[in-house]
Amino acid sequence: MNPPGLDDLLTCLRFPSVSTDSRHDADVRACAEWLRSKLSALGMTTELHETAGHPVLVAKNEHRADRRTVLLYGHYDVQPVEPLNEWRTQPFEPEIRDGRIYARGATDNKGQLMAHVQGLTELLAKGGGDLPVNLTILFEGEEEIGSPNLKPFLESHARELACDVVAISDTGMVAPGVGTFTYGLRGIACMEVKVHGPSIDLHSGIFGGSVANPATAIARLVESLHDADGRVVIPDFLDAVRPLQDWEKKAWAELGDSAAETLELTGAPALFGEAGFDDRERRWARPTAEVNGIGGGYQGEGSKTVIPREAFVKLSFRLVPDQQPEAIFEAVQRHLKAAVGPGVRLEVKLGHFGMPYLTDPMSDLGQAAQRALRKTFGEKVALIREGGSIPIVQAFKDVLSADTLLLGLALPDCQAHAPNENFPIANFASGVSLHGHLMEELGA
Amino acid sequence: MNPPGLDDLLTCLRFPSVSTDSRHDADVRACAEWLRSKLSALGMTTELHETAGHPVLVAKNEHRADRRTVLLYGHYDVQPVEPLNEWRTQPFEPEIRDGRIYARGATDNKGQLMAHVQGLTELLAKGGGDLPVNLTILFEGEEEIGSPNLKPFLESHARELACDVVAISDTGMVAPGVGTFTYGLRGIACMEVKVHGPSIDLHSGIFGGSVANPATAIARLVESLHDADGRVVIPDFLDAVRPLQDWEKKAWAELGDSAAETLELTGAPALFGEAGFDDRERRWARPTAEVNGIGGGYQGEGSKTVIPREAFVKLSFRLVPDQQPEAIFEAVQRHLKAAVGPGVRLEVKLGHFGMPYLTDPMSDLGQAAQRALRKTFGEKVALIREGGSIPIVQAFKDVLSADTLLLGLALPDCQAHAPNENFPIANFASGVSLHGHLMEELGA
Repeated sequence: MNPPGLDDLLTCLRFPSVSTDSRHDADVRACAEWLRSKLSALGMTTELHETAGHPVLVAKNEHRADRRTVLLYGHYDVQPVEPLNEWRTQPFEPEIRDGRIYARGATDNKGQLMAHVQGLTELLAKGGGDLPVNLTILFEGEEEIGSPNLKPFLESHARELACDVVAISDTGMVAPGVGTFTYGLRGIACMEVKVHGPSIDLHSGIFGGSVANPATAIARLVESLHDADGRVVIPDFLDAVRPLQDWEKKAWAELGDSAAETLELTGAPALFGEAGFDDRERRWARPTAEVNGIGGGYQGEGSKTVIPREAFVKLSFRLVPDQQPEAIFEAVQRHLKAAVGPGVRLEVKLGHFGMPYLTDPMSDLGQAAQRALRKTFGEKVALIREGGSIPIVQAFKDVLSADTLLLGLALPDCQAHAPNENFPIANFASGVSLHGHLMEELGA
Repeated sequence: MNPPGLDDLLTCLRFPSVSTDSRHDADVRACAEWLRSKLSALGMTTELHETAGHPVLVAKNEHRADRRTVLLYGHYDVQPVEPLNEWRTQPFEPEIRDGRIYARGATDNKGQLMAHVQGLTELLAKGGGDLPVNLTILFEGEEEIGSPNLKPFLESHARELACDVVAISDTGMVAPGVGTFTYGLRGIACMEVKVHGPSIDLHSGIFGGSVANPATAIARLVESLHDADGRVVIPDFLDAVRPLQDWEKKAWAELGDSAAETLELTGAPALFGEAGFDDRERRWARPTAEVNGIGGGYQGEGSKTVIPREAFVKLSFRLVPDQQPEAIFEAVQRHLKAAVGPGVRLEVKLGHFGMPYLTDPMSDLGQAAQRALRKTFGEKVALIREGGSIPIVQAFKDVLSADTLLLGLALPDCQAHAPNENFPIANFASGVSLHGHLMEELGA
């Protein structure tokens, strides 16, 4: 028999709420309206706010001045499903196999979001319609396209959304059954670098040797970012990096060596990273300079002997405390200008950026979250950082001055963003329980 | 009034004989048939040979044992016309402006080919139907797609095509009115290099720092090909390079400095090449390692923060005497294997290659060609090499054991392969004259 709330999750998963595809606009909205009706039926005051994109759902219980206000964030939009032929079953026809629910959005984020909705349902039943906290639910439909309208929405509704703390279940667990508190995230700074050479693609026979090749020039720039040991060697880049604290080293060491798992998850021929740091430190506590895309010249089959007129590289830098995106942009641009070879023209276009995030898991709120995790999962709580960036966490900090508790329920093999995305029923059940314990601890 | 033969050239230019586009297959054939009828009308024995692709036209006068046999090569196919909107007039509706014929194929190769046809017409008239040589005309329709069927055709018709020398007008003149003998060409060796990393594109936040980025790895390989002064530093790569002879240095010095012209033709911000060599030496007498295409990861607008699963670079090496393509392939592969960083898998796919070409302009045949050029253009003859590769020249050497006289009529601003391709009427007239002088000198 399905646990309580699971049928609602399956219903939620049947909405093909792909936010990036305008053919699904009506499906995205239908999912939001369905969620609104669920929360209204629980006695919450709900409002579906229009934005320039997909709607934002806000729901509240009755707020009282004598208790904490918790903002619970989630997103009801999902990633596209392509490549469809790699799915074992249809992505919007959820199927349960071996204790896991397979569907697009199962783990990211509908499974985690609906666990909180079911937890709320049970907590309201237990409290006779009352909760231990003032709860504000904020479910958006644009997370998978970078939340373009969320920060403006927060700004224009800051008073209505004022809160003491934000809670989100949209991150990972280190292993099945291990309560996991993500207290840090890397920031990001993106840029596109172009190198311009001749005014047209040139015949590489006629002119080869007499002009700088933009593709060679861009490769030399990329090479200049690291030494052979994988360390970023851009001057000033590492200056602001805060060393790992002793308690962090200890907490992470208790998780065991992650190298074997990373190797399996990536399928890389071997791991490679900055000398002097282990796999977890490289991913969670060290900044990176990564090529996300490189291109120039002939891209088709076989050969076409041209010297391309230009070449580009898309770079993203993952940042750790206390690196500042603006300072990183400056340092990288200075370096590129100094490193670019003769005979070409450099163009740099800055892209989006976000601050690294770090909260103290030993703060009052952090300890409340840890207690809730212990009551749900048992004594051992993993305190981790993650390597990704969640820009909304920074937006909550900037606009609402609120820290965020990241209490994720996803496992490494849940295939978020990939074919055959799935979510264990056990994790759903844990999420239901976690919601109750979290609200009780935050309300205490 | 148009000079004799020009109307025929205009007719020839109206055939849209684009060999790479199967929608033009009938046009290519129609052009071949039209040429056949022209040569038949001159009293030549003609045959249109079918191939796996476009037909090869062979025409001969009566061959006699007591004189030299000259094979005249040309091609009647043309490049595509795109981008059409950059043409001032329609590419297949030839127009004469300021003494130049504007049309696709005007210079490459129909203008030069038809100058020889008109020269032949006049020489036959002068000789009462006889010529000073055994002439074999070989016009193909696949030069612009790499002559895939020409070498097999030469091999299967080697006896019929046996000759003492090949003559081709499909190269350049150093300046208007300066007879130009191209006695050397660079060879070529192409390869595609791939670097494989993780089994799928990875999230650069979650995994960035822990695995080698294939795009970074390919950039490091490209960087390793040259030093900062533009010299190829692949071990053993330069070993077989024959130094420029004193007479060549002298002949090239007489042409004046080419840097300003190269800068203008390329539109590059500045010239850049191997330290210690001037512009012409870099293009004609030094080998190169050029990136023709590079790619990996996200290619669209904006950013997508992935670590790509693989990246590629398409390389071509221009070779000079006495570099051997096979030895170069070996040297480059050894270098790449040694230079590739950890954490990725290297894959190298060898592509097409061709030997560098060098003939002696002071040989009997070379001196005959120089005399013909002097009679056509005046005393000063430019002896040059070119940087490109013409694989058919090597095919003539390999299959027919014949050297090739490259007596080009194209100017640097004739826009071969580009919009607004054109050919000066004066060059057409010179080509007509050159044909007669060349046949007389070779027959002497």
